[in-house]
Amino acid sequence: MLDIKVTRNKHPKAKPGKDEPLGFGTLFTDHMFVMDYDEGQGWHDARIVPYENLSLSPACSVLHYGLEVFEGLKAYKAVDGRVLLFRPDRNGKRMFDSCERLCMAPVPVEDFVQAVKALVEIDKDWIPTGEGCSLYIRPFVIAVDPYLGVGKSSHHQFIIILSPSGLYYPEGLKPVGIWIEDEYVRAVRGGIGAAKTGGNYAASILAQDLANKGGYSQVLWLDGVERKYVEEVGAMNIFFKIDGKVVTPMLQGSILPGITRATVIELCKDMGYEVEERKVSAQELADAHEAGKLEEIWGTGTAAIISAVGRLKWGDNVMIINNNEVGPLSQKLYDTITGIQTGKIEDKKGWTLEVC
Amino acid sequence: MLDIKVTRNKHPKAKPGKDEPLGFGTLFTDHMFVMDYDEGQGWHDARIVPYENLSLSPACSVLHYGLEVFEGLKAYKAVDGRVLLFRPDRNGKRMFDSCERLCMAPVPVEDFVQAVKALVEIDKDWIPTGEGCSLYIRPFVIAVDPYLGVGKSSHHQFIIILSPSGLYYPEGLKPVGIWIEDEYVRAVRGGIGAAKTGGNYAASILAQDLANKGGYSQVLWLDGVERKYVEEVGAMNIFFKIDGKVVTPMLQGSILPGITRATVIELCKDMGYEVEERKVSAQELADAHEAGKLEEIWGTGTAAIISAVGRLKWGDNVMIINNNEVGPLSQKLYDTITGIQTGKIEDKKGWTLEVC
Repeated sequence: MLDIKVTRNKHPKAKPGKDEPLGFGTLFTDHMFVMDYDEGQGWHDARIVPYENLSLSPACSVLHYGLEVFEGLKAYKAVDGRVLLFRPDRNGKRMFDSCERLCMAPVPVEDFVQAVKALVEIDKDWIPTGEGCSLYIRPFVIAVDPYLGVGKSSHHQFIIILSPSGLYYPEGLKPVGIWIEDEYVRAVRGGIGAAKTGGNYAASILAQDLANKGGYSQVLWLDGVERKYVEEVGAMNIFFKIDGKVVTPMLQGSILPGITRATVIELCKDMGYEVEERKVSAQELADAHEAGKLEEIWGTGTAAIISAVGRLKWGDNVMIINNNEVGPLSQKLYDTITGIQTGKIEDKKGWTLEVC
Repeated sequence: MLDIKVTRNKHPKAKPGKDEPLGFGTLFTDHMFVMDYDEGQGWHDARIVPYENLSLSPACSVLHYGLEVFEGLKAYKAVDGRVLLFRPDRNGKRMFDSCERLCMAPVPVEDFVQAVKALVEIDKDWIPTGEGCSLYIRPFVIAVDPYLGVGKSSHHQFIIILSPSGLYYPEGLKPVGIWIEDEYVRAVRGGIGAAKTGGNYAASILAQDLANKGGYSQVLWLDGVERKYVEEVGAMNIFFKIDGKVVTPMLQGSILPGITRATVIELCKDMGYEVEERKVSAQELADAHEAGKLEEIWGTGTAAIISAVGRLKWGDNVMIINNNEVGPLSQKLYDTITGIQTGKIEDKKGWTLEVC
């Protein structure tokens, strides 16, 4: 158990009005959680303090060598007034694994969950209640060694900030267009693609910008070796409904092991769908579409939860999926997951954790 | 021309004593250069200010999405008292390219060079003069948008800090051991391997740590696709002298285009060596060693300049190179480059730039 010292913010900000559009990740609450790590001493000085700028040495490793990992999860105000988290232990475990991949000291999963709960409880009045709204939680670990040598870091900070957020995509559940990226590569087996770390996102910005300019909202990455198999979308894992089956790329080291991905796989199996985690080639998708069997496509991620894909572009082939409308399975998954998250649907899985 | 506003540090630190060992990148001078970029306004407010911590929003992109690029170069006090930089325009051009790969606003090369010169001139009394010592210059650009959405950044800072440094490897020019890494991968074609950005270094730490624990100082990366061809070492490009010829892996998108690499290629050609930039497989190296034709190996980089490799491990095969001694060509390259950098050898190439 962490001994978390709390310093209340004496100058709380005005909260947004009930009908004010929130956007994503632009507004922050009154407090943040901070804990320090120093080699030899371990993690220490867990504290909740007023939200404020960090004071960092210009030489510190996070600014030069990308030694940073992060997580994303959400807190919801349930219909009965309870405050709920969704599978926070999974985020804690993934952050632990990400830290290990970067040779950074991992935060124990139970400390992660305790810190998230403690911070959300203090700022619970910031949780927005509008349709599709939630309190986005961003835990992250950065290396703060004030030293320019490239190597294992010995000083870290674990920080959690909170952002009341609306829908991730302004268009809501309205289907998005994505294209299969065949020039740029996000990650490769043996690399850091399975870790939730800055470098993977830095690698994605240019291709995403080109896709945006071309009228698509995200890119669907191909594997870095054969450039044949689809891997994941910018901020989401990807699912296909092909001829009645649910298919998603298998995890093999270059794909982020999404928590919404795991949730969707379990829910689809419960609904009686056959679910295949395997290699999925762009050619297979084009063939299935040609044969009228590519029934639905959706992305999964904490920010968007379920994002229906209405257009898939591969070279000159623009495939329209389900008449560019949200498919029935995509809609059912969205309704089920958000229903459990907000307490509208009974949680038989033990996925939600009550904060207060 | 930048209009650089200078605010002098009123509390300069004590400089290290003449015989104090300096290490690498741990000590910083009294000033730093800072310039801001805001979309719509461009780069503005170039300034030299006292060296101090940065105040950054905990939400800012550099801490989450690895939007950071950097450079490394050195200033030397020449034997005649002049202060010299070595090919700073090359660093400026590479930083420009790195920024573009990450969709960040590039700093014009002439502004980069002007800023470096101005800062070094102000802190020129910090340039150490001991054998192998220099003033290490670290320019870097970070994205400071206080916003959690993943996308193109609109606000950056360009910062330069200076660190009086000794030899990068404490062992000096003494040969190092490196091993060929066949599990982890640093970069792949289509990725960001040719940009000098944090994510590539974050990807390297675990393998480097394992190598260190195994008694080797660096890893030699293989290509991410076929895992057959050597690419580069942690902080250096790599060269082989095989049967009288100089061979180095060709640049093809996943290798950092090193400035010392380009310098060594030009110098070797001037010396009459045949220089091949091409694919080099681990098997070719083992075969050449077996045949007694792997005459020298050395790494090149700004920090170490030339680092002789005395042991190369590939699986169970530990190849001893040149009897684990610094080879004659490695030594000659080191002497030539450091000679030009410190003004001991006449610069016929126009590689040095006089600061003052």
